[in-house]
Amino acid sequence: MRLIRSLTFRPASLVFALLAALPGLSFAAEAATAHRPATMADVLAQSKPSDWMPLDPQNTVYVELSSGRVVIELAPRFAPHHVESIKALARAGYFDGLAIDRVQDNFVAQWGDPEHAKPIPTASTLAAEFVTSARDLPFTLLPDPDTYASLVGFSSDFPAARDAKTERAWLVHCYGMVGVGRDNDVDSGNGTEIYVVIGHSPRQLDRNVTVVGRVVQGMELLSSLPRGTGALGFYESRTERVPLKSVRVAADVPEAQRTSLEVMRTDTQSFTDLIEARRNRRDPWYKVPAGRIDICNVPLPVRAAPAAARK
Amino acid sequence: MRLIRSLTFRPASLVFALLAALPGLSFAAEAATAHRPATMADVLAQSKPSDWMPLDPQNTVYVELSSGRVVIELAPRFAPHHVESIKALARAGYFDGLAIDRVQDNFVAQWGDPEHAKPIPTASTLAAEFVTSARDLPFTLLPDPDTYASLVGFSSDFPAARDAKTERAWLVHCYGMVGVGRDNDVDSGNGTEIYVVIGHSPRQLDRNVTVVGRVVQGMELLSSLPRGTGALGFYESRTERVPLKSVRVAADVPEAQRTSLEVMRTDTQSFTDLIEARRNRRDPWYKVPAGRIDICNVPLPVRAAPAAARK
Repeated sequence: MRLIRSLTFRPASLVFALLAALPGLSFAAEAATAHRPATMADVLAQSKPSDWMPLDPQNTVYVELSSGRVVIELAPRFAPHHVESIKALARAGYFDGLAIDRVQDNFVAQWGDPEHAKPIPTASTLAAEFVTSARDLPFTLLPDPDTYASLVGFSSDFPAARDAKTERAWLVHCYGMVGVGRDNDVDSGNGTEIYVVIGHSPRQLDRNVTVVGRVVQGMELLSSLPRGTGALGFYESRTERVPLKSVRVAADVPEAQRTSLEVMRTDTQSFTDLIEARRNRRDPWYKVPAGRIDICNVPLPVRAAPAAARK
Repeated sequence: MRLIRSLTFRPASLVFALLAALPGLSFAAEAATAHRPATMADVLAQSKPSDWMPLDPQNTVYVELSSGRVVIELAPRFAPHHVESIKALARAGYFDGLAIDRVQDNFVAQWGDPEHAKPIPTASTLAAEFVTSARDLPFTLLPDPDTYASLVGFSSDFPAARDAKTERAWLVHCYGMVGVGRDNDVDSGNGTEIYVVIGHSPRQLDRNVTVVGRVVQGMELLSSLPRGTGALGFYESRTERVPLKSVRVAADVPEAQRTSLEVMRTDTQSFTDLIEARRNRRDPWYKVPAGRIDICNVPLPVRAAPAAARK
């Protein structure tokens, strides 16, 4: 059985050696160190201010529900035209008064214009942005094998995959990722209908949809919504729908009303330490450390920005 | 890059050839057929009555909430003593009036006796049942690589992993799986505290907890609960807790009040066809079939038992 094991449990050191010549890649969790922080709490406690970066208000969107605010970080590097479209729609007030009309258990929560009644102030369709060029893309590689892609890791603070042969990269559908609904035509999306993953990562969607960002705060406001009882989890009556009070680009919101957040940079030793602490959990509860981690199980730390960092 | 690709995307045919001598294994999705059903809907429509099996009322538990019934299928093959304990606790009325006191987003919903006030009518602790012998274990192998285990697949209708070297098998933490809370001591669980996975599969728990079954109906009643705002998702006030009206073994419930369900057998051609239909989605919406599937993304079909099958 040795051969099968070596196929499945590829030795990380071998992979690192083989990949070392690939440009644009950094490596997480590649070397054992004597004084590595043991747990995620240790990593966060020992992190430096430079390990963190503030969200860019120009690429952050606030979805205001009656239950609170959902904060979405947009990913213009991966979907520039869709991100621009969503910001234009938000700035035109397009989403205000629309509603979450679909919550399918273990899949997605989705909002848009269920009545198709509101005029769309932007392009009615956009060309698909399912994948992007991996050239010059910052990428911190996860050392563990993935079911769906040959290489997975993090680009800025987004989970992503890349293919060395085609030099393409794409965002992967982890919990909390945000994508753009479309019809059967790949170029039929425009950002007016948006979904958020609320269950086990539906990775079969990867490279089939334009992914535009991720929820960095407020996931529980979406994941705890009642599930729709109609086909595909659509709410069957209008009264079940969850109204969007407003959707705003953070930069357009008065500073005092913004949610000032920082995310951990993934190109740092602290993030590498965090991955290692989660690959091999070392708190007293865990008896069998996994020794590896799924891309969608790596936490991407978010914290309130220190007062000094706010502007 | 050829070597890396072959390590990651291990060719299914090679693995099948190498594994062919391993006893107790059957193989899903191993051969292309000309008239294979294209979609999951096709598979279900074309399935035969013999592809399905009724839930065993002696190993089915009903958790009654004010919002409805959660149906749990127990896995005595994997955790015989914990399953017996949970059934004994249910039959003693232990859970009745207790509550769901923890709902941690993207992790678990959990119930038990938050006040530690109710006398426990069974053994106060049980020896861990984290893994079991893989000998003579029915096992339908999934052909795709897994981040956490060398072999994954299905045993009866549970997602499971096995290790060919140690001849051990264990249930894996997919969405909807049910496990037994414990303290740091591995032998400190007894079935009085139970959790259900409500988010992305926390596979790091595999082989660290006794897994006792899975939710086959009613997941949305757990997954849509408000998240706890205390540490680890515990509710901070008693009024937030969600009472358990009762927990019953199905066999003890009058037949007219049972939920008669059938689950698809995983050792059938229909299930093999279903896996293939989900590995390569062929409805018009999908443009890039994944060509593989994560163990936790394989649906385990459940349906109302035909009237003739009910007794």
